[in-house]
Amino acid sequence: MPATPQDPGFAPRVRASFASQPAMATLGAVLTRVEPGEVDIELPFRADLTQQNGFIHAGMLSAVLDSACGYAAFTFMPADADVLSIEFKVNLLAPAHGERIIARGRVVRAGRTISVCTADAFAVRDGREHHVATMTGTMMTMLPRATAAG
Amino acid sequence: MPATPQDPGFAPRVRASFASQPAMATLGAVLTRVEPGEVDIELPFRADLTQQNGFIHAGMLSAVLDSACGYAAFTFMPADADVLSIEFKVNLLAPAHGERIIARGRVVRAGRTISVCTADAFAVRDGREHHVATMTGTMMTMLPRATAAG
Amino acid sequence: MPATPQDPGFAPRVRASFASQPAMATLGAVLTRVEPGEVDIELPFRADLTQQNGFIHAGMLSAVLDSACGYAAFTFMPADADVLSIEFKVNLLAPAHGERIIARGRVVRAGRTISVCTADAFAVRDGREHHVATMTGTMMTMLPRATAAG
Amino acid sequence: MPATPQDPGFAPRVRASFASQPAMATLGAVLTRVEPGEVDIELPFRADLTQQNGFIHAGMLSAVLDSACGYAAFTFMPADADVLSIEFKVNLLAPAHGERIIARGRVVRAGRTISVCTADAFAVRDGREHHVATMTGTMMTMLPRATAAG
Repeated sequence: MPATPQDPGFAPRVRASFASQPAMATLGAVLTRVEPGEVDIELPFRADLTQQNGFIHAGMLSAVLDSACGYAAFTFMPADADVLSIEFKVNLLAPAHGERIIARGRVVRAGRTISVCTADAFAVRDGREHHVATMTGTMMTMLPRATAAG
Repeated sequence: MPATPQDPGFAPRVRASFASQPAMATLGAVLTRVEPGEVDIELPFRADLTQQNGFIHAGMLSAVLDSACGYAAFTFMPADADVLSIEFKVNLLAPAHGERIIARGRVVRAGRTISVCTADAFAVRDGREHHVATMTGTMMTMLPRATAAG
Repeated sequence: MPATPQDPGFAPRVRASFASQPAMATLGAVLTRVEPGEVDIELPFRADLTQQNGFIHAGMLSAVLDSACGYAAFTFMPADADVLSIEFKVNLLAPAHGERIIARGRVVRAGRTISVCTADAFAVRDGREHHVATMTGTMMTMLPRATAAG
Repeated sequence: MPATPQDPGFAPRVRASFASQPAMATLGAVLTRVEPGEVDIELPFRADLTQQNGFIHAGMLSAVLDSACGYAAFTFMPADADVLSIEFKVNLLAPAHGERIIARGRVVRAGRTISVCTADAFAVRDGREHHVATMTGTMMTMLPRATAAG
């Protein structure tokens, strides 16, 4: 994994793209950390994001985990690139309840076209972090010349 | 796969559980079809569910695909069981834009404890269905005695 | 999915590549069918490929499922391309025992760079096919100019 | 994750089960490390395990990664339990070539019925380890009363 992003303006670029995702605003998700190859996103616990048992719905967890993976990969991409999720897998480890969820994404391997990332979701409860889900995903660098997704 | 649900009241049971998922209401998702081992969920296209390119966010697709998988499995479960997602994987096939999304879930194998399901998401655009995502997931039957997830 | 391979010589090209995989010969796997977007591979039941209960090891199933996915995608690739597996996921559905295993791969979406495939493994036992595993995988088209994987 | 296996004889139990997997012997795989929640398996580089480019076939990598995941989970299981793979996903990160492969499995979450594990494969080349693949998998505890898988 490259230690240094090729675009020195990677952090504002990530923040601008995140801000342009209406879905993140709808969920109330906040981008709380951007480092080379690492991104944190926080999701406040909200009852309207839960499933039938009062836990955060796995799809909502997937949304912040996917964005955490994608933006972790995006930190290493060229300034004119876009990022596209090709696939991801989520394992649900424990019920997602608490005050908020922290999704921490990081790059496992950054390639020219394909990057592999992992992200973990933790439920913050009584001041402790509980590991509730883990994702592995494949992200694609989309350059301006590339006219189609794949 | 069992051809006949063991609980003849499977359809109202699925509808009641779906109605108790606040996350589905938040997304505007509607359960449109419940058959033995098969469930359809529709998601209207809404700009507040999109990512940075104006397509439905992969996490929102995952939410309806996961619910479609879970409720497809749930049709074959005993009347007093709950259903829990253990894991799922999503492949994104094409940009998710159009008038609405249809997620069709079906059971591949229904076991006593573990069921495997697939779900496909189609974007309806100009009267045609475009295949935009596919999920394979593992669902667990939670009986009243089972006190912990796993 | 393209109905017609762009390379009319796709079938001998697939057969030649398969024949150049020593791992397939080691397992005794045979390529039994090559059609546009679809490939079948058969694995004879052999005790030396089993796990601790006498069933075919999940890794050996993965080997033929992965090759079935890869070669299904390969049928649609240009004549000078190579195929690379990016990722795959396998769900094990039932114990893999019987006289032989048939892995049937097919293309779900064929893209210029990225293709998504599924493959199913069936154990043939007493003249019937039993569904024992299912795979979804992502395959990449590697053109001569591409110098690195990803 | 439990810090202490409930069966103090976990290590010989793992070694005995590994030794009863003919597939591991066929591949020449060796169990080199067994600790609570962690297992290493080594695979010598052999030309008869490669794909068309001379790299270890992804299926063979999956075999040792799956066994590493399964036996990592098995260290925490009761003395009379068996372990079953429910599903796994592999991301291929780089070509698998070198003198040997080391697969390192570890438990992410150990549940009563369901355990989630990860395993990473490294190719040892010129004295350095290169990360070539990563797996996340779900393993099931099979107790004697359980008569069916799932």
